[in-house]
Amino acid sequence: MGKIQLENTPLHIAQEKFISLFNFEPRVEMVRVTESLGRVTAEPIFAKISMPNFHASAMDGIAVKAENTYSAHETTPLRLKLHQDYEVVDTGDPIPEGFDSVIMVEYLRQIDEETVEITEPAVPWKHIRQIGEDIVAGEMLLPNNHKIRPVDQGALLAGGIIEIPVIAKPKVAIIPTGTELVKPTTNLKPGDIIEFNGTVFSSYVQEWGGEPIYKGIIKDDFNLIKQAVEEALEEADIVIMNAGSSKGREDFTSAVIKAIGKVHFHGLATRPGKPVVLGEGANGKPIVGIPGYPVSAYLAMDWFIKPLMHNFQGLATPKRNKIKVKLAKKIVSKKGAEDFIRVTIGKIKEQYIANPLTRSAGVTMTMVKANGLLRIPIQSQGYEQGEEVEVELYRPIDEVEKMILFAGSHDLTIDLLNSVLKRIESSFGIKSSNIGSLAGILAIGKGENHVAGINLLDEKTGEYNISFVKQHLRDESIVLINLAYRQQGWIVQKGNPKNIKTIEDLKNTDIRYINRQFGAGTRVLFDYLLKRANMLPDDIYGYEREDYSHLSLAAAIKGESADVGLGILSAAQVMGLEFIPVVEERFDLVMTKQFYESDAGQTLLKAINSKDFKSQVEAMGGYSCRDTGKIMFQN
Amino acid sequence: MGKIQLENTPLHIAQEKFISLFNFEPRVEMVRVTESLGRVTAEPIFAKISMPNFHASAMDGIAVKAENTYSAHETTPLRLKLHQDYEVVDTGDPIPEGFDSVIMVEYLRQIDEETVEITEPAVPWKHIRQIGEDIVAGEMLLPNNHKIRPVDQGALLAGGIIEIPVIAKPKVAIIPTGTELVKPTTNLKPGDIIEFNGTVFSSYVQEWGGEPIYKGIIKDDFNLIKQAVEEALEEADIVIMNAGSSKGREDFTSAVIKAIGKVHFHGLATRPGKPVVLGEGANGKPIVGIPGYPVSAYLAMDWFIKPLMHNFQGLATPKRNKIKVKLAKKIVSKKGAEDFIRVTIGKIKEQYIANPLTRSAGVTMTMVKANGLLRIPIQSQGYEQGEEVEVELYRPIDEVEKMILFAGSHDLTIDLLNSVLKRIESSFGIKSSNIGSLAGILAIGKGENHVAGINLLDEKTGEYNISFVKQHLRDESIVLINLAYRQQGWIVQKGNPKNIKTIEDLKNTDIRYINRQFGAGTRVLFDYLLKRANMLPDDIYGYEREDYSHLSLAAAIKGESADVGLGILSAAQVMGLEFIPVVEERFDLVMTKQFYESDAGQTLLKAINSKDFKSQVEAMGGYSCRDTGKIMFQN
Repeated sequence: MGKIQLENTPLHIAQEKFISLFNFEPRVEMVRVTESLGRVTAEPIFAKISMPNFHASAMDGIAVKAENTYSAHETTPLRLKLHQDYEVVDTGDPIPEGFDSVIMVEYLRQIDEETVEITEPAVPWKHIRQIGEDIVAGEMLLPNNHKIRPVDQGALLAGGIIEIPVIAKPKVAIIPTGTELVKPTTNLKPGDIIEFNGTVFSSYVQEWGGEPIYKGIIKDDFNLIKQAVEEALEEADIVIMNAGSSKGREDFTSAVIKAIGKVHFHGLATRPGKPVVLGEGANGKPIVGIPGYPVSAYLAMDWFIKPLMHNFQGLATPKRNKIKVKLAKKIVSKKGAEDFIRVTIGKIKEQYIANPLTRSAGVTMTMVKANGLLRIPIQSQGYEQGEEVEVELYRPIDEVEKMILFAGSHDLTIDLLNSVLKRIESSFGIKSSNIGSLAGILAIGKGENHVAGINLLDEKTGEYNISFVKQHLRDESIVLINLAYRQQGWIVQKGNPKNIKTIEDLKNTDIRYINRQFGAGTRVLFDYLLKRANMLPDDIYGYEREDYSHLSLAAAIKGESADVGLGILSAAQVMGLEFIPVVEERFDLVMTKQFYESDAGQTLLKAINSKDFKSQVEAMGGYSCRDTGKIMFQN
Repeated sequence: MGKIQLENTPLHIAQEKFISLFNFEPRVEMVRVTESLGRVTAEPIFAKISMPNFHASAMDGIAVKAENTYSAHETTPLRLKLHQDYEVVDTGDPIPEGFDSVIMVEYLRQIDEETVEITEPAVPWKHIRQIGEDIVAGEMLLPNNHKIRPVDQGALLAGGIIEIPVIAKPKVAIIPTGTELVKPTTNLKPGDIIEFNGTVFSSYVQEWGGEPIYKGIIKDDFNLIKQAVEEALEEADIVIMNAGSSKGREDFTSAVIKAIGKVHFHGLATRPGKPVVLGEGANGKPIVGIPGYPVSAYLAMDWFIKPLMHNFQGLATPKRNKIKVKLAKKIVSKKGAEDFIRVTIGKIKEQYIANPLTRSAGVTMTMVKANGLLRIPIQSQGYEQGEEVEVELYRPIDEVEKMILFAGSHDLTIDLLNSVLKRIESSFGIKSSNIGSLAGILAIGKGENHVAGINLLDEKTGEYNISFVKQHLRDESIVLINLAYRQQGWIVQKGNPKNIKTIEDLKNTDIRYINRQFGAGTRVLFDYLLKRANMLPDDIYGYEREDYSHLSLAAAIKGESADVGLGILSAAQVMGLEFIPVVEERFDLVMTKQFYESDAGQTLLKAINSKDFKSQVEAMGGYSCRDTGKIMFQN
């Protein structure tokens, strides 16, 4: 059970030192200009011909010799004969030999088919596009190391260039290692892990202008891995080894690199991403050991593979735009490592607000959901709620500005709402954080979300939501809209083996309960049910075990780590569990009047009120849309 | 010679009305997730399996049943037996049946191969990644109308998705029309125009997620064009007709559309881009008639084809970032049309500076050189020099910030310098505007360029450049660096048929001279030569005919519209003309000390001083690099 002690190299040092080790000598290949989009010029490209390559008329009219028209005047009109004094030219036509000016058709008086009259002399070279007006033969059209855009192709073809020398795409070998890895499937055995990093890496390599070489899954065997890396070093320019997420895999990676080359760095002062291995083969080609956890992996690709590939092509590594945001949550960081926090950003009342996502390096979905990345410096201990910090944007700013931030209680219908919203106006989108109803209401007051989903039962009145909004959002002008009614009930194993029917059954010490987090509407409901039954938290085995969503609560029961939890029918259904209804509750959305009246708010309402949304919600089971879209309260 | 009177519809009205006419019903097709990069989801995608789909150890250590460890304490250590009380697990391993906690290896005392001792109880579900920690089966992974990124592919595969429904790529037919059009070639006959717009359009269509169908060049024949459009309407979702740049071609376009469908708009209040035709076929598919001039064409693609294609895919049309810039030149605009001015932007002394490029709709190279676009509203009469205006960026802001703005006298070696610079540090680049030496010096004083190329002869002293810099940049701390010495001479037809040797020969009225613009160093030189020969401008036929660069001056002589001009050897050489040396002049670069000392300035100096640059310059002929890189003056 021994472990290699990893180094703790600051990221920027590892990047500078490692990346500068490699002076790639790119291969050059010829491609047809018509197929050169996105390729990178290997040499400056000079025009072979001029454009236009003849003197061309810039107007519709007649070509004349200017000096023969000097006598024309209003008082002494001049008549010109076709094929002798003039030729008819249209825009773009070559100027016939011997002529040097064009008179626009508007200035001609047609006398007969072969005669026109003018009352003004022509000016030499007027209305003529001279040779080379656009491109002059010999002119540099594009410098080297230029990534070809559509307009560049136009200029190249116009300049008589048919083929150009481009830098060959860097070949990047991808070697996923791990005995537990299996090809993508829906048929997993326990312990199997789907190998999906390889696909993500291949796509990144394509986006960064390279050619991925996917080597297939290699089992955890030193010799097999060594052989695969040796092969890869032959055929590729850059080699990626992707360790499984199990223990000691990076040790395998570093041992293999040591055996066939050199390890420069092993261990970064970053969270996540620490176990990166940076080395090179005997032939001087870079080998990068990327950790197995997906978030670490994608960050490490960005840190090392992206700049290596851009250097190979002689291109500057593109940087992400940065903006200042206000943090919706306090973030704690331990000194000694740089933290990389994925965040969702939206714009509320002229301010960008960022909500941090879970930090776990294993949660792929944080990379899907994030539209920004916050870096916390090594020596920082984090930031306070409300503090202004700088983040890198993963998405264009105009998309970020159209994000509608939901933070509060989560419900599966919110994902459906996002889908319907995007069909109505695809530039809008919902980013939702599951922080519970109460925190959601408070966040509205602090200007940290646009919308909060809430399902809070007032124990005294038996009424939902309104009293909480009144209490906590006294100073805000708000609108409360019903999203749906939903059934809450006991989620239990198929066949209800523990025969749970009422809350009193949960007293049985044989029954393992799983609870929702403090502040969640479902937790408030459970506490209310306990109180009504004159029971105490201590009566429930597992009261302290908290989960943050209906679905993951259901997943815990499905995984047999708990027997029962309070939740919604749809969560039980997607996990193939049984559901015993307890109560119908009202799930509302609270928002400021300002947001309600905004373009985004009105589009959201349109989605909520659509037949499409209501029919999809009711089809899920356990929901009623009888008041969906109705204003339940406003002040 | 009749002409259709075009309408004058404001662009935003034509866009809103025309684009909203089409409610595309996209086709759906299944693709493998591994091949789905850049495709657009047709439906929301829900996870089929959870990730992890088993309880997995999050640490290296042992799996235990927590409740069996509660007696462990520092004073009462507990011994556990392998295969009975515990199993060894590594990170990622499944938790064996019956266990519910993991104790990290660091907290174990190994007694023998089958026994460990602990001094602290385990906490239930500690160090366990529960089923669904990342993805829960049934969870929405992606909404519809989402463009797939690499990380999305990872999440889809992790969620057990192998294939997904995506929106079929919109098919866009491209029909170039024009009898004068020929396929890309270097072998042009007078009047031939290379058909390159079709390639540019095809690349745009690909970039915007579509599939181009290039129909090949169609001659100017109503029936042929009509037939091609009818065919295209069958196979494509959107049809582009590209008119030749000659007269009346758009009339053909509108006539064909009228014959087989409907014309909605013909003529926009834009400069360039006016002759756009917007229509639809009998089957309701959009037909867009794009003008022939390249700049008009690419702008019109952006105005209409880009949003149509994005609507088809249910995607928001991406917007360009905007920044505020200071104008380096006055821009005049006529009321009644919106002007689209291509500009080159750089950052000088913490301010973005924009230089307008030539407005001609026929100059493809303006689209290559521009990194920004300035829109001048219909009612505006333009902007003053130094005014702050908003521009759209064609390039990322970090690239714009690294642009080195050259404005002054142009020399072919500046393009070479750009190439060498990009090899040293590809993130830098040179944008050069040819405004003449004197204007270049004045621009340095106004903070409108980083560097000015100058070749100004002081008639009194016979010395180059220094006196001008001293006079016009008194208040600036500047550095003057030699770029090269170059030969100026008479550029004449091959074989020198007019037998030109000295300036006196130019008095011959049979000889057509072509001059450089006022303020150009070469013009100053010519005036000096005239004076020295006691000649007057009136002695020269063509003194008033001005050209803006060596190359286009040479092109005019090549095109036989002039017999002789003063210019540099390399310009004569690339055009295959003859050169009679007159004088060697010094070409220097002037820059502020601040720029000289900056990272960009030092990298530029490195390029100037490189062997690579000097050898390329001398290889051009007519240059001497004996002082290249030498500081000629500083204050």
